[in-house]
Amino acid sequence: MDPQLPEPAPLKALIDALRRLPGVGVRSARRMAYHLLQHDPAGARLLQQAIGTALTDLRHCERCNNFSSEPVCATCSSTERDTGLLCVVETVADQHMIESSHGYHGLYYVLMGRLAPLEGVGPDQLQFRRLLERACDGKVHEVILATNFTAEGETTAHYLGELLRSRGLTVSRLARGVPAGSELEYVDAGTIAWALTERRGH
Amino acid sequence: MDPQLPEPAPLKALIDALRRLPGVGVRSARRMAYHLLQHDPAGARLLQQAIGTALTDLRHCERCNNFSSEPVCATCSSTERDTGLLCVVETVADQHMIESSHGYHGLYYVLMGRLAPLEGVGPDQLQFRRLLERACDGKVHEVILATNFTAEGETTAHYLGELLRSRGLTVSRLARGVPAGSELEYVDAGTIAWALTERRGH
Repeated sequence: MDPQLPEPAPLKALIDALRRLPGVGVRSARRMAYHLLQHDPAGARLLQQAIGTALTDLRHCERCNNFSSEPVCATCSSTERDTGLLCVVETVADQHMIESSHGYHGLYYVLMGRLAPLEGVGPDQLQFRRLLERACDGKVHEVILATNFTAEGETTAHYLGELLRSRGLTVSRLARGVPAGSELEYVDAGTIAWALTERRGH
Repeated sequence: MDPQLPEPAPLKALIDALRRLPGVGVRSARRMAYHLLQHDPAGARLLQQAIGTALTDLRHCERCNNFSSEPVCATCSSTERDTGLLCVVETVADQHMIESSHGYHGLYYVLMGRLAPLEGVGPDQLQFRRLLERACDGKVHEVILATNFTAEGETTAHYLGELLRSRGLTVSRLARGVPAGSELEYVDAGTIAWALTERRGH
């Protein structure tokens, strides 16, 4: 149900630009544009400036590839981290989730993606060479692969596992199994099958 | 579950700015920021420019109060519209919905809000005087109040109705009743009560 009313060009351009944000369709984009213009022009200015500053000032941390305003980010510079452990994640959001579990005190490497041959994302696009250099710094003794348990995440983990093992590193993968607090009746069969295969002594 | 990882200042500023968009929480804002920085810096530049242009070039149409890049918008300048009918809506989105019904060929006035005394939005903030001037141009003979059927929308319609009638204008309101295509069993009692009160000869 697209409107028939003519929209002024600058408004249309703003709506189109907002639609490039992930998860924003034409209806949300329109609501956002109206809101910024009518009720929050100060917020609009702020967003405009924040985009500019972020694009100019942010780079990738030389060690973990996360966004950083310094050559080496605060996490990698921290002296309270176990430098012998390196956890490989697909995205910064995944890194945040692992951090919020309070179960890990090593360092990270953020791939900023996963292998997706159909989308043209291969080992070169993900700069696997940089990860290898990072992992072979002589301090890291174990690399924990924490890519997603999706087809693409698993492929990425498999490929990286081979590469890293060939360099003599210990490689591990997050455990698969029944989620904490869940009832077996409502867990999918694939998960149950994995939990059975990987059962442990009790 | 807020992350413990330190975030570089420009990234944090971008996430905070994105959170000012309606319907965007911290998780979505973070996802948007990562997406723009990692996968769509061109889109980020585009958004930055679009905000700037929209803030600079857009104004309110002198006649209908909608966003426009000209003093009078394309809809109000159209010669194919019935200048005797004026439909008052709360937002541009509402105007789009009415337009997409293909049932109206008059002109519009967009309030850009509704009376909300608790939020400090009164007749002055909504510039009711401008609407009155517009409605009293000598051509308009009927004003259709199409504010929402919420408490605030109804209050706005009631208030505007009194004002406009006192200037000798015919005032009408969108019909209330059972939505098209719906089964009575699933319609709320308030709607049924209205549909009974406003029943018409058949």
